Amino acid sequence: MSFLQKISSNVKNIKQLEYSALAERTNQIREELRQGVRKPYGDVIDVSFGDPHRAGLKPLSFVRQVLAACLYPQLMNSDKLPADVRHRAQRLLESCVGESVGSYTATAGIPEIVQRLSEFITRRDGGVPSYPENIYISPGSQWALTNILKILVNTDGPSKTGVLISAPCHSITTLSILGLGAVPIPYYLNEDEGWTLQVEELQRALESAKKFCNPVALYIINPGNPAGPRHVQSTSSMQEVIRFVSEKRLFLLADEVYQGCVNGDNSKFVSYKKVLAEMGPPLSDTVELASFHSASKGFTGECGLRGGYVELVNLDPVVMKHIHTLFTTGSCAPVLGQIALDLMTNPPKPQEPSYPLYHQEVQHMRTTLAENGKKACEVLNSLPGFSCQPVEGGMFAFPRVFLPPRAIQRAKETGMQPDTFYCMRLLEEAGVLSMPGCDFGQKEGTYHIRLCIVIHKDIMENLLRHLANFHQKFMMDFC
Amino acid sequence: MSFLQKISSNVKNIKQLEYSALAERTNQIREELRQGVRKPYGDVIDVSFGDPHRAGLKPLSFVRQVLAACLYPQLMNSDKLPADVRHRAQRLLESCVGESVGSYTATAGIPEIVQRLSEFITRRDGGVPSYPENIYISPGSQWALTNILKILVNTDGPSKTGVLISAPCHSITTLSILGLGAVPIPYYLNEDEGWTLQVEELQRALESAKKFCNPVALYIINPGNPAGPRHVQSTSSMQEVIRFVSEKRLFLLADEVYQGCVNGDNSKFVSYKKVLAEMGPPLSDTVELASFHSASKGFTGECGLRGGYVELVNLDPVVMKHIHTLFTTGSCAPVLGQIALDLMTNPPKPQEPSYPLYHQEVQHMRTTLAENGKKACEVLNSLPGFSCQPVEGGMFAFPRVFLPPRAIQRAKETGMQPDTFYCMRLLEEAGVLSMPGCDFGQKEGTYHIRLCIVIHKDIMENLLRHLANFHQKFMMDFC
Ligand SMILES: Cc1ncc(COP(=O)(O)O)c(C=O)c1O
Ligand SMILES: Cc1ncc(COP(=O)(O)O)c(C=O)c1O
Repeated sequence: MSFLQKISSNVKNIKQLEYSALAERTNQIREELRQGVRKPYGDVIDVSFGDPHRAGLKPLSFVRQVLAACLYPQLMNSDKLPADVRHRAQRLLESCVGESVGSYTATAGIPEIVQRLSEFITRRDGGVPSYPENIYISPGSQWALTNILKILVNTDGPSKTGVLISAPCHSITTLSILGLGAVPIPYYLNEDEGWTLQVEELQRALESAKKFCNPVALYIINPGNPAGPRHVQSTSSMQEVIRFVSEKRLFLLADEVYQGCVNGDNSKFVSYKKVLAEMGPPLSDTVELASFHSASKGFTGECGLRGGYVELVNLDPVVMKHIHTLFTTGSCAPVLGQIALDLMTNPPKPQEPSYPLYHQEVQHMRTTLAENGKKACEVLNSLPGFSCQPVEGGMFAFPRVFLPPRAIQRAKETGMQPDTFYCMRLLEEAGVLSMPGCDFGQKEGTYHIRLCIVIHKDIMENLLRHLANFHQKFMMDFC
Repeated sequence: MSFLQKISSNVKNIKQLEYSALAERTNQIREELRQGVRKPYGDVIDVSFGDPHRAGLKPLSFVRQVLAACLYPQLMNSDKLPADVRHRAQRLLESCVGESVGSYTATAGIPEIVQRLSEFITRRDGGVPSYPENIYISPGSQWALTNILKILVNTDGPSKTGVLISAPCHSITTLSILGLGAVPIPYYLNEDEGWTLQVEELQRALESAKKFCNPVALYIINPGNPAGPRHVQSTSSMQEVIRFVSEKRLFLLADEVYQGCVNGDNSKFVSYKKVLAEMGPPLSDTVELASFHSASKGFTGECGLRGGYVELVNLDPVVMKHIHTLFTTGSCAPVLGQIALDLMTNPPKPQEPSYPLYHQEVQHMRTTLAENGKKACEVLNSLPGFSCQPVEGGMFAFPRVFLPPRAIQRAKETGMQPDTFYCMRLLEEAGVLSMPGCDFGQKEGTYHIRLCIVIHKDIMENLLRHLANFHQKFMMDFC
């Protein structure tokens, strides 16, 4: 007898991403390359994830030095490490239980780190207060988001719980919602106006959803992934969203993990918490908000360490108690991920010995990101059948690709979504691993691909050259 | 308006541990000590968790050296690190995406590490084959367990899903089951016979549970936490369990995270997978089994890195596919936790330069654990009103304490469980933080406390002295 019939129907709801076929084929291709099979490329360029080290960017030396010294304190006796690194590591170890990064920490994280996170948030938001007791560190921000969703999703009621999500949307969030037995309700961002969010569209999505579920929350990614309004939302648009959630009594989930990735001249990240606070009472005292941040993104880019956090605003103390117990069931976040968060939000100060190198490395990343963003848009928009909105925040280009009807037809015959078909060809022929738009949600009849642009400059150039050549050939083949 | 009424009823089910009041009071006491308040002790001895570094044991140098070199590869140019450490770190980095521990890995973990885990399991089980595609690495084994429970728990059916758990049982597992909207069904271990498991008791628990839920799985901890049969289950008892789950069509969840902690002369850890394989068909092909292991426990003791894994046996391939998608929603396990698992299961070999120190450190831990276990039993059993079963596996002593009726009465007046009351007094008066038996489940009218014994020898002696003095005074006060 198998459990197949009996297993959780929620888990069965989680659909597999189209991307998984691409990932699988990439492994095969790499194996073929290892075995000497000749291809028009030496290795696959993997820009499928928002993962800076994956495509050639280097970690920040300061971050790695402090982490290494925390792991192996003997290093602190060596003068190879700058004095501020050693001092920082020493202080961090003193905050660890048993002075070891190998001990479990308090549920919400190491208290001193949580305290400093709240101070960072207060600074970031120009003085809007942040309280440590509202912050929970988790093994990646995704995990914190899933936990907060767990609180919001009720499987007991007569109708399913609904969560409004952008389309396009970070795909794992959609899977998490499905896995909890809830319903993702897409609201479409307006691509032609630069992926802006329109309140009328929120309204439409909400009203249509009410027929088949009970919407309780609105999830928003800012800066966007894979795309968002010029990749950074304007304050007035955020105010509209806040009024909307207040009126409709929705919980606001603000995924702000890309806050450190803003590179447009006119774009500046402003947090939902700040905008909310500045709107004053009654909104500022009542709108329930969870804001997420992560050491995976931005210039720190330490995805593999798994450190993220959530800050909760305006929650009932009894709900906070339930959140606490829920987080207890996960023990605690990885200590080195917690430390990475601390280092990301408290970088070296100008007078400290690590500052010059740190500053130089961050500047290099910043320039790379800005140049890659510009370059990607330029090249993509120069190709027939591509249209790419400007990239000023976040880590991705998300161009629309106008596929010829014959390509769409061929995709159908092979059982793939049209953009997956395009991505698969791009992988096979040009050695570029991207993600298809269908995994993120998109307007019916439109197709996209997502490319991570936080990659080494040379790789970016290489990638665009391969992509351009491939695309021209693809269009000829199917026109 | 608050979400309080609307929030998940499953999450509301998770009860707070009695321990949390003790943890909170410990923080206050430490703050008081910092502020100069005089107490009969200088600091709190914290033996509440199974967390070796918490109470003075040192991490294994080899593990920390390799991890530090992976984080900060410049260290590999230094001859301060042994050659095998550098070689190991180099090889590990080559298996990381982008050669950085800062990249996301494949869902199940770094393929080379997963492969080596399967080889470790095969060796451990005397050749019973293990397949990498059945292994998932996660941020701690608890997380993997929660994921497998998610698969098993169905909230759609007319009755709730039930999971048989030992009493006493690792408390977080109980909380996880509640948080998923399922029902924990306790089966009582027989304390008088050395915490053995009896099939008749499983039978009783199952039958009584069928009246109010749909039992689908049996969870077993071996070696036990907080207690188990001489802390290691005998093969014949394991065979009985396997026949039982097969007959009753239950999924077997074998929590084997303490497999590296066996110290009795006649005790040896044998895995459920091995016993199952040796029972031959049809059992060996049909019983569905998940076995959990972790880098948190044993001599590695790296709780803070968060690395655990599950191996699945005899699952339907379609169920495996759902498990894969479910793990996808968590991105991946922390890379350094994955590496810690690899190092734990592939320690230095006798001819390698790191071996002598590694061997010496492990021997030291082994001796400490064995001596602490013996010492704890001796001292506890010498105290009137204490009875402690031998400790030959796992990381805990779980003595029964026979509380005087007046103490029980006083506990009731203060609104605490009797053993929490005892633990609180022990904390206040002797500065020892333990866990009360009520958090683990115990026979009505019996009371216990749990003490972690994987601690520095001197701390153990200190602890036992404080405890003995406190206990005598406590008994006098309430007799
Ligand atoms: C919008 C968004 N939120 C969350 C995450 C997950 O980040 P973490 O690594 O902190 O779990 C990602 C990762 O790509 C993301 O794009
Ligand atoms: C029986 C048992 N299983 C699992 C765990 C959790 O281990 P991990 O740190 O790998 O999540 C513990 C921790 O104490 C435990 O006692």
